[in-house]
Amino acid sequence: MIDFEHIKKLSHTSSSKIVLLVIDGLGGLPHPKTGKTELESARTPNLDQIARESICGLSDPISPGITPGSAPGHLAIFGYDPITYNVGRGILEALGIGLNPERGAIAARGNFCTINAQGIITDRRAGRISTERNAELCHLLSELKLDAKIVVTPVKEHRFVLLFQGEGLSPELTDSDPQQVGLLPKEVEALSPQAGRMAEIANEFIAQAKKRLKNESQANMVLLRGFSQRPDMPSFHEIYKLKPAAIATYPMYRGLAGLVGMEILPTGGSITEEFKSLQHHYADHDFFFVHFKSTDSRGEDGDFEAKAHAIEELDQALPVMLKLNPDVIIVTGDHSTPATLAMHSWHAVPLMLRSKWCRPDNVTQFSESTCINGGLGRLAAVEIMPLAMANALKLDKFGA
Amino acid sequence: MIDFEHIKKLSHTSSSKIVLLVIDGLGGLPHPKTGKTELESARTPNLDQIARESICGLSDPISPGITPGSAPGHLAIFGYDPITYNVGRGILEALGIGLNPERGAIAARGNFCTINAQGIITDRRAGRISTERNAELCHLLSELKLDAKIVVTPVKEHRFVLLFQGEGLSPELTDSDPQQVGLLPKEVEALSPQAGRMAEIANEFIAQAKKRLKNESQANMVLLRGFSQRPDMPSFHEIYKLKPAAIATYPMYRGLAGLVGMEILPTGGSITEEFKSLQHHYADHDFFFVHFKSTDSRGEDGDFEAKAHAIEELDQALPVMLKLNPDVIIVTGDHSTPATLAMHSWHAVPLMLRSKWCRPDNVTQFSESTCINGGLGRLAAVEIMPLAMANALKLDKFGA
Repeated sequence: MIDFEHIKKLSHTSSSKIVLLVIDGLGGLPHPKTGKTELESARTPNLDQIARESICGLSDPISPGITPGSAPGHLAIFGYDPITYNVGRGILEALGIGLNPERGAIAARGNFCTINAQGIITDRRAGRISTERNAELCHLLSELKLDAKIVVTPVKEHRFVLLFQGEGLSPELTDSDPQQVGLLPKEVEALSPQAGRMAEIANEFIAQAKKRLKNESQANMVLLRGFSQRPDMPSFHEIYKLKPAAIATYPMYRGLAGLVGMEILPTGGSITEEFKSLQHHYADHDFFFVHFKSTDSRGEDGDFEAKAHAIEELDQALPVMLKLNPDVIIVTGDHSTPATLAMHSWHAVPLMLRSKWCRPDNVTQFSESTCINGGLGRLAAVEIMPLAMANALKLDKFGA
Repeated sequence: MIDFEHIKKLSHTSSSKIVLLVIDGLGGLPHPKTGKTELESARTPNLDQIARESICGLSDPISPGITPGSAPGHLAIFGYDPITYNVGRGILEALGIGLNPERGAIAARGNFCTINAQGIITDRRAGRISTERNAELCHLLSELKLDAKIVVTPVKEHRFVLLFQGEGLSPELTDSDPQQVGLLPKEVEALSPQAGRMAEIANEFIAQAKKRLKNESQANMVLLRGFSQRPDMPSFHEIYKLKPAAIATYPMYRGLAGLVGMEILPTGGSITEEFKSLQHHYADHDFFFVHFKSTDSRGEDGDFEAKAHAIEELDQALPVMLKLNPDVIIVTGDHSTPATLAMHSWHAVPLMLRSKWCRPDNVTQFSESTCINGGLGRLAAVEIMPLAMANALKLDKFGA
């Protein structure tokens, strides 16, 4: 497999444009009654037309059998080995609410929880307190004085993000969250000698928070997990010499795009508005990542029809994008989210790539079962970007 | 590629059950007259029915073009990189006769051979002496006094296994067997400084054996090769958190299963009896490796019809296994043994995986030519276990 050092040497800028459309959780499983997947059940004239003009295949986000979270699923499509470039839970949670921690800052996922008089956890979610109460308590905790600057930001219900900022901090810490009730919260421990001070700071935060929250009936304690920092990764510009932009409605995906150096474009919430944003900014970039979320959400809901309907909604919006006639169009998903499983899954994801130079195969419909026989075969998601770059004629020959 | 450290973190126990049926040497080549392989020539209604309910593919035991021995073929299916986890010839020979050398013991494959008055090898197999005579000579050699405990165990005809037991032994030795007649047996040499003592012990064994056998007309010398020790490898339980069991009629496959920590179940010699053993012990384990040998034997015999017949015999026995309705069924081979070649070969092996969540493809018959168009595409055998675990819903999501 060619690595970034090689791609850096081979890549060059040109006027051609690439649009990567990620249909989140695209892959599905057959409906027990019809034997057809969500994608196969949806009416998708535009996707099918693209398929006829594309080279198709099935993509494994990580490797066969492995179910990816959102971060590894996307990083793989962006060409980053998702095992090497691991985004921690704390950072992902921060990205999910639009925070953009600098390298060096440590992020943790926090839960307000309930403990009894003995300190034992009786509810890991503090009765799912209201988001408003959460915000008040986060404000309270923000005033704690520690040996590092802290930012406490509410998420939803009992969840918050805790950022530590300062010099010499380390994410190599164990969780305080034992992930089950009936136990005491755990001491945060350093996983390396240089994380000793950070462990002390984290434990001091927990101790002070406990004191500050002691009169709360529900949210009288905090649990921390997933200490992590922004991964150190080369940008899209460094690797591919692209000027990339991202159009996504959910903060987490905007955050992931930001991690690899994409400019985040403003957009309305519907896929039509996302494509209009693409149209509006089309002259300013040579790579566009467009993210469509509702397929994954409906899949996780276990709602087969709604997921198929979301695919149809996307299909109907496609003409705006198609009219721009990008030199390279890639349509795929970051992973499968079959409605019958109602969760992310390991199943390979349909993929198609259209360009003047793609060498179309005989696939005439965009679906799981047709893409099996596509010209790309079954490939790892990290191989998509080199293919996109090649089809955009942005990669030089390797070797003499 | 996901490694064992990741699989360990992702795997969890559950009540679902996996049956891995390995049809040894399954893959074949077309008969010159019919153009059909052994598998395509056999009448296999049960295998074909499983194929219709499965996702299919072609598996490369190691990588394209590489013909595996039995050990790498099986270890790959078990998920162990067969290049990293190399089982030496001596250890394999020991496993093949039901010995189970402890880590630290050194095993070598031995041949009785014939040398002339000048010490030159005239017959590497000592005229294929009887197995009875072999046993008597092994008994004789067992009495030799060396700087390590030795166990000399007869195999068949001229073959024996030599085990060295004790502290500080090393397998880093060259062979004494020059693998051709007309030469002197070679001195055993140490391949590393710490193997010096072991080389002396091995050469001393050979010298004493030569003296003890000098009056034999045929078996008047020994040749040693494949010095090796049990590879240090994590168990199935450590990696996959499975409670695995193996059903196999040949000691070598039981030995290989033992290396990865499978419990070896008692069984009669026919495939029907093997499936009855599966039925009998079905409640006690969550993973079963069932090995069917005769396809490989008949392939090595070069007997096309007999190999096809062996496949039919297996097919007819399948209902006992199917009745148990395992959550995941995998049917494949450890390598190809085409009757037209009469030996192991490099050809990719048909593979099918059936589960409630497998996403069946359009393959309606289990064969080499149909599996090409299966939904798994062409994959490395080491990827089978992650897929099995995923389909058994025993793997957590990777990454946030």
